[in-house]
Amino acid sequence: MIDRLSLNQKTTELWPLPETLEGCAAAGLRWVGLWREHVAPFGVERVAEMVRAAGLRVSTLCRGGFFPADTDAGWKANVEENHRVLEEAAALGTDTVVLVCGGIAGGDLERSRDQVAAGIEAIVPRARELGVRLAIEPLHPMYCADRSVIVTLRQALEIAERFPAGVVGVTIDTFHLWWDPEIWDLLGRAGPRIFSYQVCDWLDPLPDVLMGRGMMGDGVIDFRRFTDAVIAAGYDGPIEVEIFNHDVWNTPGEEVLATMIDRYLRLVSPG
Amino acid sequence: MIDRLSLNQKTTELWPLPETLEGCAAAGLRWVGLWREHVAPFGVERVAEMVRAAGLRVSTLCRGGFFPADTDAGWKANVEENHRVLEEAAALGTDTVVLVCGGIAGGDLERSRDQVAAGIEAIVPRARELGVRLAIEPLHPMYCADRSVIVTLRQALEIAERFPAGVVGVTIDTFHLWWDPEIWDLLGRAGPRIFSYQVCDWLDPLPDVLMGRGMMGDGVIDFRRFTDAVIAAGYDGPIEVEIFNHDVWNTPGEEVLATMIDRYLRLVSPG
Repeated sequence: MIDRLSLNQKTTELWPLPETLEGCAAAGLRWVGLWREHVAPFGVERVAEMVRAAGLRVSTLCRGGFFPADTDAGWKANVEENHRVLEEAAALGTDTVVLVCGGIAGGDLERSRDQVAAGIEAIVPRARELGVRLAIEPLHPMYCADRSVIVTLRQALEIAERFPAGVVGVTIDTFHLWWDPEIWDLLGRAGPRIFSYQVCDWLDPLPDVLMGRGMMGDGVIDFRRFTDAVIAAGYDGPIEVEIFNHDVWNTPGEEVLATMIDRYLRLVSPG
Repeated sequence: MIDRLSLNQKTTELWPLPETLEGCAAAGLRWVGLWREHVAPFGVERVAEMVRAAGLRVSTLCRGGFFPADTDAGWKANVEENHRVLEEAAALGTDTVVLVCGGIAGGDLERSRDQVAAGIEAIVPRARELGVRLAIEPLHPMYCADRSVIVTLRQALEIAERFPAGVVGVTIDTFHLWWDPEIWDLLGRAGPRIFSYQVCDWLDPLPDVLMGRGMMGDGVIDFRRFTDAVIAAGYDGPIEVEIFNHDVWNTPGEEVLATMIDRYLRLVSPG
């Protein structure tokens, strides 16, 4: 059963969007996760039509976030950019925006963390109006300086829990969270705030800070345990495969999809 | 005042040990942190004499640990190796062994974590006999698979606190712990269990998983806050500079020492 499986298009970064959608449909997928920079050249309305025509739905739009800024004006501009992300998500027919919250600005980690929380607070009203949910993605701590000052599920939940459970929640990405000794306790607490579940493996040794992610089964992550815990917490949405890896990117899209489906069915699928 | 500053010799990896000791003495240092593989070619007794002759003391011996193993026999062999580390530390006249606890063995993260705790328990009696303290070093989570399944200060403390405070404690390394939102609360809890304080900076973006560490001041870490918190927690021991970086390694040792002293005085020193 691949009815919950979604290709996050970052896994096939070099595959043009029209071919990606056709390929997903031909492989029997029902979901696709899109990135703004791949949507922009076609326009949101056009992509929404292409997705519908392919019989697919958009699992998530990646990505909002990147709130921290050196100045207040910069932070406000980031909030405005996030309003555009929400509008694009609504137009694409997805109910979930993944938030990669942004790294350190102005050399001040604590202030940057405060700017993230304030940024989320600032966009919650528009998210509610549009019916779009905000899925804070804690990234692996190795991205704390440059991509996300939110690096543990505990941190993400502490922000999310300030808002209604239907509006602000979290993305659970196995690559970012597998190491955390608290993860198994916290998934239960996350419960209905799990808005997105993304999978890819951790290669050992890690070949690269950004591009070293692996296909499920090629690394050390226990996907069975993750899926069981996420399902037990109540999550019933799509499961996205998102892999940053030049070898995967240089493999033909149809081949990546076939491997992804095989690995998903053997290692990740809820059954 | 550089009376607490120590050169961890990993910072000058390519500098032969005799020159390293002479260089430290000439620069006015009182401490040096040694690695087993650099001590072995000379023999422990000989190195102990060389250190004394240079008017130095050994701040720590790196490194014990690496407990996890696929088999029980493998684990027992690792415990035996750690007994040798303790004997070497005692012979070198240092009271502190840094434990890098080891990565995942047998594909089982939880079992590997249990093997670490059991390994430490197994070597505590010999450590007490020899008067050597075990300083568990939580490594950055990006090393969880291959180097240390202990990746947060909380985890390290939860193991250390099972044993007397004078025997098992922790190493606080800024590079490994700066991202952790709990760090400021936990340093107080660590208190007298802080057996070692190591500094180096986190470069942004991180150029390499293992070799991307930076000289203090070249990255994002707030050393003033770290030193203040470590001192407030009661730590009064040496402060080691430990940097894995090919550019630093390829710089003449005297030059590295001069830069290190300058940065230490401006950014790290307790005053």
